Amino acid sequence: MNEKISEAVIRRLPKYYRYLCDLETLGLERISSSAMSKGMSLNASQIRRDLNCFGGFGQQGYGYSVKNLKEEIKKILAIDGNYNVVIIGSGNIGQALAKYKSFASEGYCIKGIFDIDSSRVGVTLNKVEVRHLEELETFLEENDINIGILSTPKEAAQEISDTLIEGGVTGIWNFAPIDVDGRGKAEVENVHLSDGLYVLSYRMKEKSK
Amino acid sequence: MNEKISEAVIRRLPKYYRYLCDLETLGLERISSSAMSKGMSLNASQIRRDLNCFGGFGQQGYGYSVKNLKEEIKKILAIDGNYNVVIIGSGNIGQALAKYKSFASEGYCIKGIFDIDSSRVGVTLNKVEVRHLEELETFLEENDINIGILSTPKEAAQEISDTLIEGGVTGIWNFAPIDVDGRGKAEVENVHLSDGLYVLSYRMKEKSK
Repeated sequence: MNEKISEAVIRRLPKYYRYLCDLETLGLERISSSAMSKGMSLNASQIRRDLNCFGGFGQQGYGYSVKNLKEEIKKILAIDGNYNVVIIGSGNIGQALAKYKSFASEGYCIKGIFDIDSSRVGVTLNKVEVRHLEELETFLEENDINIGILSTPKEAAQEISDTLIEGGVTGIWNFAPIDVDGRGKAEVENVHLSDGLYVLSYRMKEKSK
Repeated sequence: MNEKISEAVIRRLPKYYRYLCDLETLGLERISSSAMSKGMSLNASQIRRDLNCFGGFGQQGYGYSVKNLKEEIKKILAIDGNYNVVIIGSGNIGQALAKYKSFASEGYCIKGIFDIDSSRVGVTLNKVEVRHLEELETFLEENDINIGILSTPKEAAQEISDTLIEGGVTGIWNFAPIDVDGRGKAEVENVHLSDGLYVLSYRMKEKSK
């Protein structure tokens, strides 16, 4: 496996994965890079280059096996694992993520939800009861948690992230509107939802010129 | 203004914008590209190159004016406009977006929320009443709507997107788990939240090797 896979290629892999899942649902067994190219709005040579980064899975003139390629990409992305997840912050985004049904079927199991607001503590979201944030440290000691989803106000994000990392979490998916630091111990994916809206506004302006 | 600004630069602009907003809140008046570099985890020459794409706003040895640079990027991103927005689908994500308070202060005003589920129709989210999807066409005729936010199941996304475009919408921010097509008339920003979780899983695996 090539270690120098570019960020751009890695960011395209989920797109391949989703596309292949859809093809599989539709009963397709094989697909060529040029057919994928049309469906995914990427050019065919780009697709072949991307997949070659991981050793390539196609046969000349015969295309890719949809199922094999999907399974390989799933393995590469490591979404074939079982992840134990906690969500910190049960506000708007936290609730939406807690209720998102696909996570469990993809191996991301929500084990705990924490909030500092006592009016939310005790509420059940997708069969998981919201606990008080005070219980987080003990919970992390007693459970093997891999991923923490942060949907707190920005002021609290880094401190809670540090608590998660101390408690053995190695992946932080952060929706708080500030970039958090993984302290060299955890991988962090900072999400800024509004950024997409800004980019959309930019493109709308450019188009209307 | 250079027309050939790369997608990568455009995608970084919201990050600059957020960073500058934070600096302004903290009372900073000027910043050098090397100081920005530390705060943003981008290298200084990259920052200077990025900002040069838009004509540059700094003075050698004196840095950038935080306020001016922020205002310029705001203008470039066109988030200084007033956008009228509708949300289609008042499920988990739709509700979270409807309740997100920053949109209004940034000029994105939610004018209507639509759902096909009659149990949700009539509910008020952030002072906006949910209407039945049947009313969408008439609503678009009677109101000047610029942006449609889609948070519907994937099966409905393209059809509703087409209705929005017919009704004059020029920007679609799509959270449905399928890429929608702007039909050459609307700009589309397809969001796939889970992709970030997949990329995080990949990095966690790579790190643990």
